[in-house]
Amino acid sequence: MTEATANIGVVGLAVMGSNLARNLASREGNTVAVFNRHYDKTETLIGEHPEAGFVPASDYEAFAASLSKPRTAIIMVKAGAGTDAVITSLTEVFEPGDIIVDGGNALFTDTIRREKAVRETGINFVGAGISGGEEGALNGPSIMPGGSDESWVTLGPILRSIAAIAEGEPCVTHVGHDGAGHFVKMVHNGIEYADMQLIGEAYDLIRRGTDKSPAEIADVFADWNTGELESYLIEITAEVLRQVDADTRKPLVDVILDQAGAKGTGAWTVQTALDLGIPVSGIAEAVFARSLSSKPAQRAAASDLPGPSEAWTVDDPDAFISDVRDALYASKIIAYSQGFDEIVAGAAQYGWDIKKGDIAAIWRGGCIIRARFLNRITEAYADDADLTLLAAAPYFAEALGRTQEAWRRVVATAAQAGIPSPAFSSSLAYYDGLRADRLPAALIQAQRDFFGAHTYKRVDKEGTFHTLWSGDRSEIESVDTH
Amino acid sequence: MTEATANIGVVGLAVMGSNLARNLASREGNTVAVFNRHYDKTETLIGEHPEAGFVPASDYEAFAASLSKPRTAIIMVKAGAGTDAVITSLTEVFEPGDIIVDGGNALFTDTIRREKAVRETGINFVGAGISGGEEGALNGPSIMPGGSDESWVTLGPILRSIAAIAEGEPCVTHVGHDGAGHFVKMVHNGIEYADMQLIGEAYDLIRRGTDKSPAEIADVFADWNTGELESYLIEITAEVLRQVDADTRKPLVDVILDQAGAKGTGAWTVQTALDLGIPVSGIAEAVFARSLSSKPAQRAAASDLPGPSEAWTVDDPDAFISDVRDALYASKIIAYSQGFDEIVAGAAQYGWDIKKGDIAAIWRGGCIIRARFLNRITEAYADDADLTLLAAAPYFAEALGRTQEAWRRVVATAAQAGIPSPAFSSSLAYYDGLRADRLPAALIQAQRDFFGAHTYKRVDKEGTFHTLWSGDRSEIESVDTH
Repeated sequence: MTEATANIGVVGLAVMGSNLARNLASREGNTVAVFNRHYDKTETLIGEHPEAGFVPASDYEAFAASLSKPRTAIIMVKAGAGTDAVITSLTEVFEPGDIIVDGGNALFTDTIRREKAVRETGINFVGAGISGGEEGALNGPSIMPGGSDESWVTLGPILRSIAAIAEGEPCVTHVGHDGAGHFVKMVHNGIEYADMQLIGEAYDLIRRGTDKSPAEIADVFADWNTGELESYLIEITAEVLRQVDADTRKPLVDVILDQAGAKGTGAWTVQTALDLGIPVSGIAEAVFARSLSSKPAQRAAASDLPGPSEAWTVDDPDAFISDVRDALYASKIIAYSQGFDEIVAGAAQYGWDIKKGDIAAIWRGGCIIRARFLNRITEAYADDADLTLLAAAPYFAEALGRTQEAWRRVVATAAQAGIPSPAFSSSLAYYDGLRADRLPAALIQAQRDFFGAHTYKRVDKEGTFHTLWSGDRSEIESVDTH
Repeated sequence: MTEATANIGVVGLAVMGSNLARNLASREGNTVAVFNRHYDKTETLIGEHPEAGFVPASDYEAFAASLSKPRTAIIMVKAGAGTDAVITSLTEVFEPGDIIVDGGNALFTDTIRREKAVRETGINFVGAGISGGEEGALNGPSIMPGGSDESWVTLGPILRSIAAIAEGEPCVTHVGHDGAGHFVKMVHNGIEYADMQLIGEAYDLIRRGTDKSPAEIADVFADWNTGELESYLIEITAEVLRQVDADTRKPLVDVILDQAGAKGTGAWTVQTALDLGIPVSGIAEAVFARSLSSKPAQRAAASDLPGPSEAWTVDDPDAFISDVRDALYASKIIAYSQGFDEIVAGAAQYGWDIKKGDIAAIWRGGCIIRARFLNRITEAYADDADLTLLAAAPYFAEALGRTQEAWRRVVATAAQAGIPSPAFSSSLAYYDGLRADRLPAALIQAQRDFFGAHTYKRVDKEGTFHTLWSGDRSEIESVDTH
C-alpha cells in the first residue's frame, strides 16, 4: 500500500508539466507526486532531479494513493481530448472533496462543461490558466484559476507558493467560478497577440523609415524599456534584434522566415468577443496579420501589386522614432482597453465576479505581457471598480491625449509609404470611432431599413420606426419583429 | 382525403415565407401548398391573395397529403430551435425521396448536422441561402442551395422559376453538398457588412470634409452609380440620403440614431474565417464598427478624448470626393477578395466543389450586394478557376494600381483629421501586407521562440530551428513538438 505522502500531484510530464512539478517541489512544504502515461518519462524526470523528492506513480491508483486528502492534482497535457481522458481516469480514483486542476490552455467553454460534469461526482474541478511558458512554469508563472470557493481553500496556498512574485505579491488570484480562469487566460493571450503585432509594426516602420540596423533598433527598444513602455516583450525584442546569426553573420531577424505561427487562443479571443458583441479590433488585426503572413502563395500572387510611386524618406529619424513610440503606447492602451471590455462582458454573460484590478495585478509577473503599465490598470479599477472604458480612465486619457497627434502622423505616414500597419491604424480608427459625436451607423441603419425593413430608432423620440421606402416614403411607428 | 395537387410547399408564413409563397404561385406550373403553425396566418394569406390559388393545410399530415411526389417543402421560419422542430415534424409525414428545404439563415454547421440526420431517413435535406429581403422573396431573390444532387433535379427548375434574373440567367445555382449553400450565403452577408461600412465611411468623410448636404452627397452617390461602383447598395444610399424627415424637415439620416444593429451572420463570417485561418479584416472591422456604435455608455465615456488640434480643411472638394470614390472601390475589391478566400478555404475544408464564378454570377441579381462589378469576378474565375488571389487577377490588379494612391491619401487624411475609417484603413493595411517583401512576422517568430521555444524556420535552409535564448544563444535544429 502506497503511503499518502504527497500534498500535490502533477499529471503529464512534458516540459511544461516537468517544470511545474519541479517548481512545486522546490517550495517548502510541498511533496509532489508525478504521473505520466508513459512511465519512462517519469523515470527520466526523477533521475534528472533527485533533489525534488518526487513521489512517482506508475498508474492512476498508485498516484491517487500517494496523495493526502483532499487529493489535489494538476493536469499538464495538451488541451483537447487528452484532457478529457485524464479527467475521466482521475475521477475514477479520486473521491468527493478532491481537486482536479486543468493547467492547460483549454477553451473556457470546455472548462465550463467539464466543471459541471466533474461536480456531479463531488470532486472539484478547476480550470487554471498558466502563463509564462517553460521558464515561467519552472520559476514562477502567472496563474489564473477558476473553480469553486471550496477548491481555492486548498489550492490557494499551493498556487501562491509557486507563482511569480510582483512587488511582493504572488501573481495568482481566484478569478471566478468554473471557466473564469481559462477565459481570462484566453484574453491575456489575445492581448499578447496585439502587443506583439504592435511591436512588430513599430520595428518595421523604424527599419524601413531609417537607416538603422536591427542592432541599432535594439538600442531603441532597450531605451523604450526604461520608460512607460517597460515590459517583458519590449525587453526581449531588444534581445532578439541584437542577435546575430552564427552562420550568415546577418541579424537573426533577417534570416527567420516571416510567417508567423499561432496556437489558436488569439482566434478564440476574437471569436468569443464576436459572440459577446465586443469590438476587439486590435486583437483581431493581430491574429489576421499572422494568418496573412502565412499565406506564401497569396503573397507571391500579390507581390507585383503596386505601392506608392514616390520613395519614402524620413526627414528627422529621431522625431519619427519618438512618434512611433507614442503610436505604440497609444495602440497598446487600446488593445488592453478592448481586452478588459471583453473580460467585463464575459463576466456579465457567465455570472463571474471578476476583479479587474486583481487581474491586471497578477499579470505583472510571470506572464508574457508583464509590464509596468499594468499597475496603472490596477489603479484605474481601484479608483472605479465599474469603469465603463479603461481607455477613458484619467491616466490613460492623459496618455492618449499626449500621444494621439504622433499616432495620427505614424498611421498617415504608413498609409502613404505603403507599410502595413493594421494594428496601429485599426486602434486609431477605434479611438476615433469611440469619441465620434456622430457615426455613419445612422446611414447603415437607414440602408437596413430600406432593403430589409429592419427599422431604426430616432435621436429625438422614443420608439422604433420604419420608412415605407417602396411606398409613399412616409414614416410609420413599428413594432420591431425582425 | 386531400388530393396531392401542389408541387411545392411553404412552411412558415411570416413576411418572408408569404412573399416566397406568392412568388412561387405566380410562376407558371407551380401550385403552392402553405402551412403555418397558427392557422389564422394561413387564412389571412389566402384571403388577401386569392389569385395565388394556395392549397392551405391545417396540420402536417394534410400538408404532406397535398404535395405531389417527390414532396418538396421550403421552411421559412426563424433560424434556430424552431427550424429543428419543423424538420422533425416534416420527417414524420414525408417519405424517402422527398425534399425538405431550409430557406432561413441557418449557420452552415447546423445545416451539415441536419442534412446528416435527415439523410438517414432517406429524405433529402437542402439548406438554401436566400438573399434579397422581403422584396427579393416576392419578386426574385438570389438563391444559394446546398444539398444532394438528387434533390437538385426536382428543386432546380422550381428555384430557377422564382429567382431573380440577371442578364437572362436565373440567380440560382447548386452551390455544393450539405452546408455549402448556407456557407456561401453567410459569406455573402459578411461581404454585405463590409460593403455597407465602406459606403458609410465614404459618406462620413465627404460629409465632414466638405460643406455638402446629405442631398448633395446623394447626387455624388447617384453619379458613382453610373460607373464601376454601380450597385444596389450605392443606389439605395443615394435614395436614403435624399430622404427628408417629415417631422423635422431635416435629412432623415440626421435624425436616425447612429447605433447599428446586426443579426449575427457577419460575426459568423469572421468566426468561421478565424477557424479557417483566413484574414477577413475588412469584414471584421465592419462587424466591430457596428458593435462599437451600439455602445452608448462607452461612447459617452470617450466623448472627451481629444482629437486633432488643427481643424481639418479640404482644399479641393471635387478632388477629395474623387479620392474617396477610389478608396471605396479599392477597399471593396479587398472585401470581395477576402470573402472569396473564405469560400475557397471553406470548400477545401468541407469538400465542396464550389464554382466561384457561378457564385459571383448568382449574386448579380436579387441580392443586397448585386453589382456590375460581379461580372468582373465571374470573368476572373473563368480565366483561372484556381485563382490564388482575386485581388491580383488582371482586372482588379489594374483597378487597385489605378486607385491605390488616392486610397492612401484618404486613409492618411482620415487619420490626421480624426475621422474613423476602420474598413478603409484595414483594407489598405491588408493590401500592403500582402504585397510586402518582408513582414515583421519574422520578429514575432523570434519572440515566440524566445519566450515559448516555439521554434522558427529560416529563409535560407530547410528545417525547424530554436535559439538557446536562456543558454549560450547558439542555434539548434529542432523537432517542432509545440
